[in-house]
Amino acid sequence: MTKITKVNAAILIIGNEILSGRTQDANTSTLATWLNSIGVKVGEVRVIPDIENTIIDILNKLRTTYNYVFTTGGIGPTHDDITAKSISKAFKVKYCYHPEAYKILEAYYKPGEFNEGRQKMVWMPENANLILNPTSGAPGFSVENVFCLPGVPSILKSMLGGLTNSIVGGEPILSLTISLKTIESEISDSLTKVQNNNKDIEIGSYPFFQAGKLGVSIVIRSEDKSKIDNCNSQILKFVNEKKI
Amino acid sequence: MTKITKVNAAILIIGNEILSGRTQDANTSTLATWLNSIGVKVGEVRVIPDIENTIIDILNKLRTTYNYVFTTGGIGPTHDDITAKSISKAFKVKYCYHPEAYKILEAYYKPGEFNEGRQKMVWMPENANLILNPTSGAPGFSVENVFCLPGVPSILKSMLGGLTNSIVGGEPILSLTISLKTIESEISDSLTKVQNNNKDIEIGSYPFFQAGKLGVSIVIRSEDKSKIDNCNSQILKFVNEKKI
Repeated sequence: MTKITKVNAAILIIGNEILSGRTQDANTSTLATWLNSIGVKVGEVRVIPDIENTIIDILNKLRTTYNYVFTTGGIGPTHDDITAKSISKAFKVKYCYHPEAYKILEAYYKPGEFNEGRQKMVWMPENANLILNPTSGAPGFSVENVFCLPGVPSILKSMLGGLTNSIVGGEPILSLTISLKTIESEISDSLTKVQNNNKDIEIGSYPFFQAGKLGVSIVIRSEDKSKIDNCNSQILKFVNEKKI
Repeated sequence: MTKITKVNAAILIIGNEILSGRTQDANTSTLATWLNSIGVKVGEVRVIPDIENTIIDILNKLRTTYNYVFTTGGIGPTHDDITAKSISKAFKVKYCYHPEAYKILEAYYKPGEFNEGRQKMVWMPENANLILNPTSGAPGFSVENVFCLPGVPSILKSMLGGLTNSIVGGEPILSLTISLKTIESEISDSLTKVQNNNKDIEIGSYPFFQAGKLGVSIVIRSEDKSKIDNCNSQILKFVNEKKI
């Protein structure tokens, strides 16, 4: 398939446990890092509660705005797992038993263990494509450009490898980090000039505290390596002049 | 002030470093936990890039939808710190030098250290209220119902104590966690019944892996302690019956 230059995605984190502060989201960072590596830029992330109408509304906005949408959470067997049903409604397709998912879980569990509770996990939008789960059996699924993954970070991580062929990314987004023992206010004027001379490059400045010392990481991001190198030279030039 | 029963907030995380996966957001969890403790429920979280028009559009939507909005990130001294200017534009007020913030930083730094780069941090929406920063001097600010905090988690955390009097919360949201050595599919039917009998209570079910063992945390959340207790009894009843 021909790669298009700019491919973007949104991440939709579904779960009251993130909004209450009980659980710290780790999936955004995992998904965004992986997406970057295959040339997909994350345009926005939303965290929303387990409310059907909210999921439907937001999903329909995101899936028509971005090339891809990745949802996390809400595909387990309990009453608060309403993602699969909500996605079915968003796409106006039947929410029903998925024969292939049923076979996978029937084979995964010991005889007699594939009980009614677990069988809920094979209900999904009709004709959904399965996303295999090497960790705990129960598959995720995709419908058109929407990919639904579980909320447990270790399980989600293990499912990404199987997804790579389903996503057509653009040019990979490269990044170069320059870590300096300085403070932001010492370099802000010079860095602004470099940014103004390189308007199509994303330059970020992030203060850090490491082993009791202050520092700044400058991160240069672009699809074009030569532009990154050029920008890097301009930054190193003022760093040398300032004797940082 | 009289407390209103339901008070909600949105969190707006501003920063390319979160969207690229480079940095894992820790501020949502800190803010949401603190807001819950003062009776404010987080309705949604958005993570957006350092793009002025995006910040303005999303902020204007959120501040008219929620009682409070908390932004994090983008108030430092570098070119990518555009939150203060964007908030000024969102409120259609002047972006200008804040005399009180200037005095604070002038006193905070050693003579000669309050350079041009650092002086950028005293530019904010005209007549903004300052949010004091006991860690690194540079204050955050608020305009009407929007509170702008820095992105560095340790600094953000240290500023919340000084904010408590500015926020009028509702009844604190209480939560009770029941941790069980079971798996979700064993309890999903019973838990669904309890949820159906207690529709105004939020019951969440979260699988966990601890020391190699599987378990489930059931979290009951409500402003009403008697309702939580009642729901807890119903859950413990089926837990005992099932000999979990």
